[in-house]
Amino acid sequence: MRLPESELYPWVNSILQAVGLRPTDAVMVTDIFMRASRRELGHHDLHDLPGRLQQLQSRAINPTPSFTPLRDEPGVYVFDGDGGLGELCCGHACRQAIERAQQTGIGLASVRHSNHFLAGYPYAQIGAEQNCMLLVYTNTDPSMTGPGGSEAVIGNNPIGFGAPGSTDTAPMLLDTAMAYSSIGNLKALQQGNHRIPDYWALDQERRPTTDPGAALAGWRVRPIGEHKGFGLALMHEVLTGVLSGGETTTGIASPGGLNTHSQTVIAIAAPDTPRGLLQLSRQLQEHNLRLPGAAAAERELQSRHEGIGLQPQGISALVEWSRQLGVALPNSVQDSPD
Amino acid sequence: MRLPESELYPWVNSILQAVGLRPTDAVMVTDIFMRASRRELGHHDLHDLPGRLQQLQSRAINPTPSFTPLRDEPGVYVFDGDGGLGELCCGHACRQAIERAQQTGIGLASVRHSNHFLAGYPYAQIGAEQNCMLLVYTNTDPSMTGPGGSEAVIGNNPIGFGAPGSTDTAPMLLDTAMAYSSIGNLKALQQGNHRIPDYWALDQERRPTTDPGAALAGWRVRPIGEHKGFGLALMHEVLTGVLSGGETTTGIASPGGLNTHSQTVIAIAAPDTPRGLLQLSRQLQEHNLRLPGAAAAERELQSRHEGIGLQPQGISALVEWSRQLGVALPNSVQDSPD
Repeated sequence: MRLPESELYPWVNSILQAVGLRPTDAVMVTDIFMRASRRELGHHDLHDLPGRLQQLQSRAINPTPSFTPLRDEPGVYVFDGDGGLGELCCGHACRQAIERAQQTGIGLASVRHSNHFLAGYPYAQIGAEQNCMLLVYTNTDPSMTGPGGSEAVIGNNPIGFGAPGSTDTAPMLLDTAMAYSSIGNLKALQQGNHRIPDYWALDQERRPTTDPGAALAGWRVRPIGEHKGFGLALMHEVLTGVLSGGETTTGIASPGGLNTHSQTVIAIAAPDTPRGLLQLSRQLQEHNLRLPGAAAAERELQSRHEGIGLQPQGISALVEWSRQLGVALPNSVQDSPD
Repeated sequence: MRLPESELYPWVNSILQAVGLRPTDAVMVTDIFMRASRRELGHHDLHDLPGRLQQLQSRAINPTPSFTPLRDEPGVYVFDGDGGLGELCCGHACRQAIERAQQTGIGLASVRHSNHFLAGYPYAQIGAEQNCMLLVYTNTDPSMTGPGGSEAVIGNNPIGFGAPGSTDTAPMLLDTAMAYSSIGNLKALQQGNHRIPDYWALDQERRPTTDPGAALAGWRVRPIGEHKGFGLALMHEVLTGVLSGGETTTGIASPGGLNTHSQTVIAIAAPDTPRGLLQLSRQLQEHNLRLPGAAAAERELQSRHEGIGLQPQGISALVEWSRQLGVALPNSVQDSPD
């Protein structure tokens, strides 16, 4: 089902306020969820909101965190996220990094005691819209093996990157984890009865598998290029958990991986980027390749015109939460058969 | 053969001055080559110097470049490298980024019209010694395919990363390209009669191969994790060639890949890092894993005590260049049988 943004945005915003977020914070978090959802991946977007609401209601995640500065220099800001939503903590870091970049050319903000940040894409996009190249790093709970190993010792520690586009070219928006496959991708491959390369993941007996279902059961994914992807994941760990003074690797797992994530955003003022990006885009087109983000830009355009597509169970969950929290349903949901 | 640094350093420095480098520039370039060589990889180190000398003597590389500032803000410095040595251009960028980080917390320097920078490791190490986390990016001439493709459309665009260590832990020093394998690694595997996974590279007929020799002949390596490594290589392209206003992808290939490289260095003042790095190192030790750079640190210690090990043909080439340029040979080389 497709919901127009004019209805979806105030609905999500109201739900977040009803569960305890401050109005200004709810605006930032709603914005992150909307940006992630316009890509229409079906995961790492509004479908993750019900899980967040559960954690906010039980106060496992702090709905009204107080951010404590740990380091404040012209180009660098490090703060404690007080167990707030990852979308709020990382959104705040994003804003701080961009503001500093606009002052000195480059800015970094890093947060500890944060939570899952949803995806790198929304932050990268915000940076690109502000004429910045933006790098966003997170660590996450261990699901990935070391080189040659069979234990999950580190998160897939994704990176997001954005660079400004123009009327002639979409922004470059990269969002990639250091594992061969995400959970979402394995599930999609399982549903389609596809096989996976035997170097992507281990099964429950810690053996290489070509069955995405067995890979999901074993949940030990492997880093891209073995020691290379592992080294990059470690680098992201140092740029987040170490830089912010937060938890690292196996320390993120307990308890429940809550309030132990760290994120870091680096923003670089880069107003002259669109020309170079257009040249790069044309060089790729000669080989029938596109810049990361080009396909998502097309889906976004559709989302903006025709509404954001959500799975039926995703809408049902938000309807249920709305009833529980006393939030009015948008017209198109009220009108639809239940 | 092992050469003590007390002899090797002044020898290399004299050769570089004899071929036309300014004394202060020769110091910086010698330092980069020494740092790369202490790792004792056998490639991407002093064994590459004869090739550089050839290019300097023919003036294909400019021995006395004038660096022109293109952008100068408190945190960001972009300049034109005037076709100078990559080691000199990137060394200058490294120094600029670190100086700015020491002022504002984070600094970035980017250079266009540079050349091959040798390796990310030396710059990452300089940053770590200056209490900085340091990221160094380069683009390079195309040798890597796009996802699913069979043409070389982009360089393997490596990244280097350093983070400060302490007496309790070695610095983290990562140096990795976005392809499954470097040329040097393929050659070593070929000499050892090893096989490679069939997803690493293509042969001359653009077919997947398990023979490192066929992979060398075809020279179309694949990005780690296909679209993931390709996306990261593109990100590095944007952070270097696009950010500096230089060449990108296929534009780097001609003529001869000279004076078309770009490098970018980001330095982050990070004096509190050693504690976090020690914790991370201990978490990895529980799984018999080590931080990138730990093994190189041990070889470095040996190099400092016993001299830097060089291959016989590497020493012969430097002896030949010394005779041609009228540079005196160090004692241990004069004494050795020719």
